[in-house]
Amino acid sequence: MDPTAATSSGGNPADADATGPTNTTVTLPPLTLRDVPRLPSALASPTPAAAVPNPISRHPYFHPPATFYISPGDVTLRHAFFDIASAAPSPLVAYRRAGPRGALAVDPAAARAALVTCGGLCPGLNTVLRELVVGLHELYGVRHVFGVAAGYRGFYGADEDHVRLDPAAVDGWHKKGGTVLKTTRGGFDLGKIVDGIVARGYTQIYAIGGDGTMRGAVAIFQEFKRRGLNISITGIPKTVDNDIGIIDRSFGFQTAVEIAQQAIDAAHVEALSAVNGVGLVKLMGRSTGHIALHATLSSRDVDCCLIPEVDFHLEGKGGLFEFLYERIKKKGHAVIVVAEGAGQELIPRTDDQKREQDESGNIVFLDVGPWLKSELGRWWKREHPNELFTVKYIDPTYMIRAVPANATDNLYCTLLAHSAIHGVVAGFTGFVPGPVNGTYSYIPLEDVAVAKNPVDVNDHKWAWVRSVTNQPDFLKPKHNI
Amino acid sequence: MDPTAATSSGGNPADADATGPTNTTVTLPPLTLRDVPRLPSALASPTPAAAVPNPISRHPYFHPPATFYISPGDVTLRHAFFDIASAAPSPLVAYRRAGPRGALAVDPAAARAALVTCGGLCPGLNTVLRELVVGLHELYGVRHVFGVAAGYRGFYGADEDHVRLDPAAVDGWHKKGGTVLKTTRGGFDLGKIVDGIVARGYTQIYAIGGDGTMRGAVAIFQEFKRRGLNISITGIPKTVDNDIGIIDRSFGFQTAVEIAQQAIDAAHVEALSAVNGVGLVKLMGRSTGHIALHATLSSRDVDCCLIPEVDFHLEGKGGLFEFLYERIKKKGHAVIVVAEGAGQELIPRTDDQKREQDESGNIVFLDVGPWLKSELGRWWKREHPNELFTVKYIDPTYMIRAVPANATDNLYCTLLAHSAIHGVVAGFTGFVPGPVNGTYSYIPLEDVAVAKNPVDVNDHKWAWVRSVTNQPDFLKPKHNI
Amino acid sequence: MDPTAATSSGGNPADADATGPTNTTVTLPPLTLRDVPRLPSALASPTPAAAVPNPISRHPYFHPPATFYISPGDVTLRHAFFDIASAAPSPLVAYRRAGPRGALAVDPAAARAALVTCGGLCPGLNTVLRELVVGLHELYGVRHVFGVAAGYRGFYGADEDHVRLDPAAVDGWHKKGGTVLKTTRGGFDLGKIVDGIVARGYTQIYAIGGDGTMRGAVAIFQEFKRRGLNISITGIPKTVDNDIGIIDRSFGFQTAVEIAQQAIDAAHVEALSAVNGVGLVKLMGRSTGHIALHATLSSRDVDCCLIPEVDFHLEGKGGLFEFLYERIKKKGHAVIVVAEGAGQELIPRTDDQKREQDESGNIVFLDVGPWLKSELGRWWKREHPNELFTVKYIDPTYMIRAVPANATDNLYCTLLAHSAIHGVVAGFTGFVPGPVNGTYSYIPLEDVAVAKNPVDVNDHKWAWVRSVTNQPDFLKPKHNI
Amino acid sequence: MDPTAATSSGGNPADADATGPTNTTVTLPPLTLRDVPRLPSALASPTPAAAVPNPISRHPYFHPPATFYISPGDVTLRHAFFDIASAAPSPLVAYRRAGPRGALAVDPAAARAALVTCGGLCPGLNTVLRELVVGLHELYGVRHVFGVAAGYRGFYGADEDHVRLDPAAVDGWHKKGGTVLKTTRGGFDLGKIVDGIVARGYTQIYAIGGDGTMRGAVAIFQEFKRRGLNISITGIPKTVDNDIGIIDRSFGFQTAVEIAQQAIDAAHVEALSAVNGVGLVKLMGRSTGHIALHATLSSRDVDCCLIPEVDFHLEGKGGLFEFLYERIKKKGHAVIVVAEGAGQELIPRTDDQKREQDESGNIVFLDVGPWLKSELGRWWKREHPNELFTVKYIDPTYMIRAVPANATDNLYCTLLAHSAIHGVVAGFTGFVPGPVNGTYSYIPLEDVAVAKNPVDVNDHKWAWVRSVTNQPDFLKPKHNI
Repeated sequence: MDPTAATSSGGNPADADATGPTNTTVTLPPLTLRDVPRLPSALASPTPAAAVPNPISRHPYFHPPATFYISPGDVTLRHAFFDIASAAPSPLVAYRRAGPRGALAVDPAAARAALVTCGGLCPGLNTVLRELVVGLHELYGVRHVFGVAAGYRGFYGADEDHVRLDPAAVDGWHKKGGTVLKTTRGGFDLGKIVDGIVARGYTQIYAIGGDGTMRGAVAIFQEFKRRGLNISITGIPKTVDNDIGIIDRSFGFQTAVEIAQQAIDAAHVEALSAVNGVGLVKLMGRSTGHIALHATLSSRDVDCCLIPEVDFHLEGKGGLFEFLYERIKKKGHAVIVVAEGAGQELIPRTDDQKREQDESGNIVFLDVGPWLKSELGRWWKREHPNELFTVKYIDPTYMIRAVPANATDNLYCTLLAHSAIHGVVAGFTGFVPGPVNGTYSYIPLEDVAVAKNPVDVNDHKWAWVRSVTNQPDFLKPKHNI
Repeated sequence: MDPTAATSSGGNPADADATGPTNTTVTLPPLTLRDVPRLPSALASPTPAAAVPNPISRHPYFHPPATFYISPGDVTLRHAFFDIASAAPSPLVAYRRAGPRGALAVDPAAARAALVTCGGLCPGLNTVLRELVVGLHELYGVRHVFGVAAGYRGFYGADEDHVRLDPAAVDGWHKKGGTVLKTTRGGFDLGKIVDGIVARGYTQIYAIGGDGTMRGAVAIFQEFKRRGLNISITGIPKTVDNDIGIIDRSFGFQTAVEIAQQAIDAAHVEALSAVNGVGLVKLMGRSTGHIALHATLSSRDVDCCLIPEVDFHLEGKGGLFEFLYERIKKKGHAVIVVAEGAGQELIPRTDDQKREQDESGNIVFLDVGPWLKSELGRWWKREHPNELFTVKYIDPTYMIRAVPANATDNLYCTLLAHSAIHGVVAGFTGFVPGPVNGTYSYIPLEDVAVAKNPVDVNDHKWAWVRSVTNQPDFLKPKHNI
Repeated sequence: MDPTAATSSGGNPADADATGPTNTTVTLPPLTLRDVPRLPSALASPTPAAAVPNPISRHPYFHPPATFYISPGDVTLRHAFFDIASAAPSPLVAYRRAGPRGALAVDPAAARAALVTCGGLCPGLNTVLRELVVGLHELYGVRHVFGVAAGYRGFYGADEDHVRLDPAAVDGWHKKGGTVLKTTRGGFDLGKIVDGIVARGYTQIYAIGGDGTMRGAVAIFQEFKRRGLNISITGIPKTVDNDIGIIDRSFGFQTAVEIAQQAIDAAHVEALSAVNGVGLVKLMGRSTGHIALHATLSSRDVDCCLIPEVDFHLEGKGGLFEFLYERIKKKGHAVIVVAEGAGQELIPRTDDQKREQDESGNIVFLDVGPWLKSELGRWWKREHPNELFTVKYIDPTYMIRAVPANATDNLYCTLLAHSAIHGVVAGFTGFVPGPVNGTYSYIPLEDVAVAKNPVDVNDHKWAWVRSVTNQPDFLKPKHNI
Repeated sequence: MDPTAATSSGGNPADADATGPTNTTVTLPPLTLRDVPRLPSALASPTPAAAVPNPISRHPYFHPPATFYISPGDVTLRHAFFDIASAAPSPLVAYRRAGPRGALAVDPAAARAALVTCGGLCPGLNTVLRELVVGLHELYGVRHVFGVAAGYRGFYGADEDHVRLDPAAVDGWHKKGGTVLKTTRGGFDLGKIVDGIVARGYTQIYAIGGDGTMRGAVAIFQEFKRRGLNISITGIPKTVDNDIGIIDRSFGFQTAVEIAQQAIDAAHVEALSAVNGVGLVKLMGRSTGHIALHATLSSRDVDCCLIPEVDFHLEGKGGLFEFLYERIKKKGHAVIVVAEGAGQELIPRTDDQKREQDESGNIVFLDVGPWLKSELGRWWKREHPNELFTVKYIDPTYMIRAVPANATDNLYCTLLAHSAIHGVVAGFTGFVPGPVNGTYSYIPLEDVAVAKNPVDVNDHKWAWVRSVTNQPDFLKPKHNI
């Protein structure tokens, strides 16, 4: 963005005076709406006359005011901050705002919805399921809602893998951890899945899962399109690691941070109660360190937070051991948080481990926690053999994933599920609902499927965070000169 | 915004097709930066040469990259969503982005900071205090930080009301509810406060409190300006009710909702366990119903949520009793959440109560909880004398306010306090730090002091929420025709 | 007990020396087993030959060893401590030890059990219900188990008040607060109840409720006997106040204390955060102060604990106000816990209130909490009008009653329910299962129905407790001379 | 006990009738008081005249009634249940009842107390420390109380290892996990310890630790006696495993079970949410399975609880795999709890591991959790290669040990600490305070040091428990014949 575009006389927007707030005005680049796809039937009959009126208008108790429904021009901005003195993203990007529409493109009476959960557990999974069922029934009168058991493979599974769900069946699910539908990994066979969907007459698919699941949903969406099917698919990203981009955060993340902080508390107590005590906590986060980072900032008792986005080294000048030793000498103890994806390149691998690959062809992860615990012990024994030393290691992974959602996440999951439903009955497909800068929006599924959300270590935020935790950046000595 | 400005061929942005996401482009109105005031000394020496380099650049462990510091053009947008098909807010408003600056306008070595808490308790108060102390010391080397006891009156209080604080003194405060500094209401005497500030040589004031405290901070800011003093004042809004506008939410709010949800759980259990049982929970919220609303949506067990922004009536067609009776007949029980400010005009007042005014000249609040409980009992006894009935009433107010902040709020308080410090050492004054659409920003104090944050009952969001909870809108019969 | 009976040479058992532990021997008074009644059928066929072998012996996975079954001579002592130097209780009293018997007096295949809950909520109610159902099914193969809805009145209620229960139906109940069966007070009509029991063919009644419920169970037991019915009745005392004697404590009590302590924490924080702040918490306990007392000792932040067993006065020498003022001057704040039955004689009553009686003919309770809060405010305003003062009042009653049982209580409820079942199939009736000095026992229902459990203010324990909390005994000045 | 001694006419105490409770009377064997040692000074001046009156009698607010003080004849029974029809323990054993005595054998003004914590963490440690400090100061006016840092070695450590403690210093400790004093293992050098104690003039030692610590305390007691020192030593058993005998349970145990149950909940959710899911939780308990057992009974979601006291085998008839397979087929999932000491003889050891011994010369423990997890995976892959299978393993050890005590344990720790103090000022030494059948008592330290507390698998209780959990007893096939 050209700073000369500023219409303030002083040119530089920093020139405020102390007499009160001042204003500076600039022009903005154009705005592009990144729209979501629609069902063939929705495209074929775009006139309001053909549309179904929203049944919420006939609600017995509640009378929607004129402003109730989202209008076609309602959008949300993807970037809510930028540097007006330098080149801004051009054009700016916007998404459709989520919410109920006055006219439906789908007849709820004929709808047949299927819900499926894939991948690992995440707090709030059952809330999303419950709210999809309750919302479909109570808002739109959809009477045929099914839970598909055990992930994508359930679509081509037995009849008992397709369980009819109604509000009575899902009563209390929002207070349960895990997923009542059960979840698995893998089993993605596109042809068999779509055949199964068609055979059972489903018209709406809600797929809740991680990045693999989102990529699978994109493939299903494209296969629907290829076959010309009038079936919608909605992806609801489930990643306790918060490693999905574009949306503000993934559901369950705040709950995970809450429990992670409790594990850090325990490690802190163990460290404090020992002579030269170190508390070590491994937290989830294979490609991103969000849980580690947020729990560190919430806890304020962490001396060092190691995440996949930042390299570190153990020995020598500027290394972890040097830093730790200083902390222990100064405070008598130290607490380390390590994300599971951190330090993978430091851990020695056997030849087998070097060859081993996961289902996606990536090299397998080694467990950084026990390795680091062991390295710490060896280091101290070697360097300070006559001084007491204790490392207590905590891996709270499965105690974090399995808890019910807290209030913040329960609310989030509720709004997420309802956003999804409103979008589907409006005729959208191939989309993901989610908050963008605080406002629920619809984002193309294919965009979300490829969006990463690393901790940006070049941005103000992470740098600032590092200064808050006061930890090293583990630059090699050469950088220090 | 003129829809004809749209550059897409189809005109209506809703015309996407099913072949994939599509784009529509429009132009935006100009953007105005609503800037915050600066200290006289900051204005007098605007050249970088005169500025103090940020000591974070000399951090022993951490080496800030080039992107670490906020640049003068970094702004955040106030409105992150709008209707591109109709008149958008023109101009759009932006605020300065919060964060560390490369050059300081204040010499930390000469700084003398005072922290004060006013008004009622709120989860996270002690975290904000702790992080102000820790941040001032560790980030900027400010060595003279004082806690002022018992609210604004402490500024003109005794010496023992001014307690020196350092990181050791505030150790563990972030895990404590309440405020270690103690807090009071009232005692605002502008002349004595500013005299006291000058007499003790404070150069930075951090005032943490509700809307009255923010208005007081504006007055202090203006008195500083009138006297030409080089003292900054920063307001940190503390309102568990979340009734402050512009910023995304106030600290402690998420924690309050968490505990409020537990009270609702208890009321739900009581209602479920009785024959024709009603659970009634009164939650904080004199002018706004945010806690009631969020706890209702988090809990999903509430049948009716009464807030100050929506009138309701008890008797007759469309009234609360009619609705409750139907719910009880259908489900066997019901749960009601009422914000403390709801229904004030329905509660009969004695002549004394009609005359009584609070310190601000407003009519005093009556306690809606016991009144509603009593009305419910009388109604049932009158209408259904031979049927069992139970109302259990819970007022969790002081169990909510006094808890320590949860992880989400602890993180929020940490970033809030650090944002405040970064702004103060950059020479800003008369401002409030806070997240705007997810990004920490600096907002003029006087704007925040008058910004309300009612639940917008004409907006999509509330209407949608009401449809989710499936409760009536209590329109009088005439509206129903 | 005659101390001359001591066989040690020194006479006084205190004469140990420092060379190690020493022994002193005395004789004990005789021991009387206070036995529980049996079913007519159990009395008629006392020979082992007629008895049914315990089906646990045929368990597919578990092979009970010889020591598995309780033998007829297994008893537990009621008094586990006494003064051997003075008159001991003579005779000592014992109860039958609870647990499985090798031979049953009841054929499980023909059994038909009914479960009923009466009175107020208590943590663990649903666990007791669940474990009765699971235990009857899994241990003894009882296939006909019914939940009777809404208290004693359910016995003569409609068919839908009798719900068949099996392990699948009660899955997860132990994690729910309240009672799934619903509970009511009153409705005790002996003839209709016993007629209803007979009409539905129940052979085992499990009545879970407070002292009124236990007295009702005694009446039912006697009516069964009068009619010569072969139906057993077992009482399971449910009193969150812990005001039932003989058994060690009532279920749910530990959970209640846990939550009560949280309320005290909140009151402590409120008091600490104010100038001259007082936190006031009202806790359950109409006739006994156990919750108040235990929560006080658990919390350690209480300055004064007022219970029904100890009179107190407000004004004058040795009164509450004098004590409070000294504490506030010394510490800056104070925390008061008051049991709901304390100070009833101090609260002024209107003529109506003097006349009003509850269903049992007792004078109605007035709410001590708001009264004391108001008296504190008036006192301070009168005596110290120029000093700040704050009272924050918390009534956590329904937040305490409604929570699920904690681990300690869940275990207790499990053992309690299984103890009950083992006793019933052994042919016992008119009994209460419960721990006596740590060992589960069977106690005659009529003994429990009249056993009170006041805090013994003349015993070491309370006196000692008072010295721990360091609070006054509110002796009137005359006593001080 | 001779059943012929029964004075009831019918002989067999089982012969009750249905007309009401009946009584049977028997005689009891003699009772022996197992007394605790006394200080030389207490033995030398046994006359009341020489004794110091208890300062509690001069308490400003509280006036101890006549019944306040424990009398010399107050004892508690070790065995509160027995079989009156067979040989009872003869003689019965009693201990001194704990509590304040009217006359002290120790002058509090001259006392100098030292507190030390050894071994691993346990919830409630800080509460015990705090209450020792507060009780010594407030009850008896002992002004010289010191915390000895880092275990027994602190006695011969530097000056800074001896920290003066008073009520202000320990404020809030009861809400903190861990031990503020820090704790270590080992470092027991008898001569140096006793020399250090003498050199610093300590007159009362309170040693809080596990069985090693108790054995150390016995050695110190004997060395005191050998040297004729007038110094008391009191042991407070700290064993989260509850593996200390005689006393009812160890402090922190209930808290540990509470948190352990949460880990089981998480494992249950993980198992339920997977196809053929197994949740595996390892809990503390090297020689005893109390935590595993209690958490199993509290949770009710455990299919199999493996403890050190019961052998099990994996393969073949009656083995774990067979049982698990049946459960998984029936329920779709299974939850296993394993105590850390279980199955040690099943885990293959390397030659190094076979040779390795811990400090006490015992063979080192191998980690049963990962081993069992791995064995389960191999078994399923081998036997059911085409069926999905998931094992989720949780090791919550350090999250359990480090939490603050819950309300039940905080109360326990308070009474324990006060019991200890009352005993010490009465002149007792070489003793342990603790509840025996619910009543606080003084037990000879040397008895406690050797008392084990295994889960008695031959007693009713464990057998009954096994029937409750419905799990196998893993008898080898030969036993089944």
